[in-house]
Amino acid sequence: MTGEGGPEAADRRRPGRRPGAADTRGQILAAAREVFSEQGFDKATVRGIARRAGVDPALVHHYFASKEGMFVAAMELPVDPDVILPELLAGPRSEVGERLARFILTMTSEAGARQPVLALVRTAMTNERMAEVVREFMTHALLDRVAGALGVPPLRMELAFAQMFGLVMARYVLALEPVASAGVEELVELVAPAIQRYIDVPS
Amino acid sequence: MTGEGGPEAADRRRPGRRPGAADTRGQILAAAREVFSEQGFDKATVRGIARRAGVDPALVHHYFASKEGMFVAAMELPVDPDVILPELLAGPRSEVGERLARFILTMTSEAGARQPVLALVRTAMTNERMAEVVREFMTHALLDRVAGALGVPPLRMELAFAQMFGLVMARYVLALEPVASAGVEELVELVAPAIQRYIDVPS
Repeated sequence: MTGEGGPEAADRRRPGRRPGAADTRGQILAAAREVFSEQGFDKATVRGIARRAGVDPALVHHYFASKEGMFVAAMELPVDPDVILPELLAGPRSEVGERLARFILTMTSEAGARQPVLALVRTAMTNERMAEVVREFMTHALLDRVAGALGVPPLRMELAFAQMFGLVMARYVLALEPVASAGVEELVELVAPAIQRYIDVPS
Repeated sequence: MTGEGGPEAADRRRPGRRPGAADTRGQILAAAREVFSEQGFDKATVRGIARRAGVDPALVHHYFASKEGMFVAAMELPVDPDVILPELLAGPRSEVGERLARFILTMTSEAGARQPVLALVRTAMTNERMAEVVREFMTHALLDRVAGALGVPPLRMELAFAQMFGLVMARYVLALEPVASAGVEELVELVAPAIQRYIDVPS
């Protein structure tokens, strides 16, 4: 989770920061939103975002460890892949499906974490440029990294993603019953084996 | 599939129909769209839609066999559940997952069939009233009927739906690769066992 306690937050609270630092960070994020939506995630660069914000690239790096981290902050996403992926991939491989399902269901069960994700999906549904931004971020910051770390073909990883994405949509956008009011653990028990099946590549 | 060859189409082509019949049908569909979006799918009635269109309820029944059929026509959906569900449920129970996956992937692979479905989903994503319409139609015209016919708990049926819904979104809205350009049969092979698992309720 970002927002609390990330390096940027610590940075902003540090005594002796120069006046206007918070505005600088906001200025960088506003520039990042513009550049991501104009150029997509892949083509956007830290240098280009710094130029748009009228600041030195070193200052951007001072606030954000990576382009992924900047995207997460700009879109107010509740999860930084750089933080969460190592956690999800630690532990027995036979339980990755369960950890992934529980993580996504627990995270989206908090309205404050869910809203920015749904906002991004809604924008992507109706705006081809933003669909491309989300596609590139999903592919290169999340799916390819998990698939690569686990040695799972990308198509299988995308089907696992499709299951969880569809579940979150059915639960929180369509609000189908009983899936909307089911408990997290009840859902994990039913859905985790489907995710695990995609991860267990037949040899 | 509706549009071609349904009872309404045959009706409109029949020689000796009274002038203005096509307009009457269009008038009923326009009234149906209004009433569905105002009252939702469950509360809308054939009688109420007839009143809004200024025609006799018998005339509505003349054009549309059921409220479900009217919804399908009003939203220009490519599939009438009254037609397709018996087909999907015929044949071995152990192959329902495969038939369902192949049917949805084949149907959505045609742009003309896919567009109205995506349009409805887009509207539901950003409009709570239409989300309710879609929710009620999905639940009562599709999911409950399949779940009831197969004796599968509704929650399992919704998770199967979530898998297919997420897959169609990943393929055609986010256009993730390789899922966007994978072949129908390649996807059926990977996804059908996940659907079948939800249908095979442990005894």
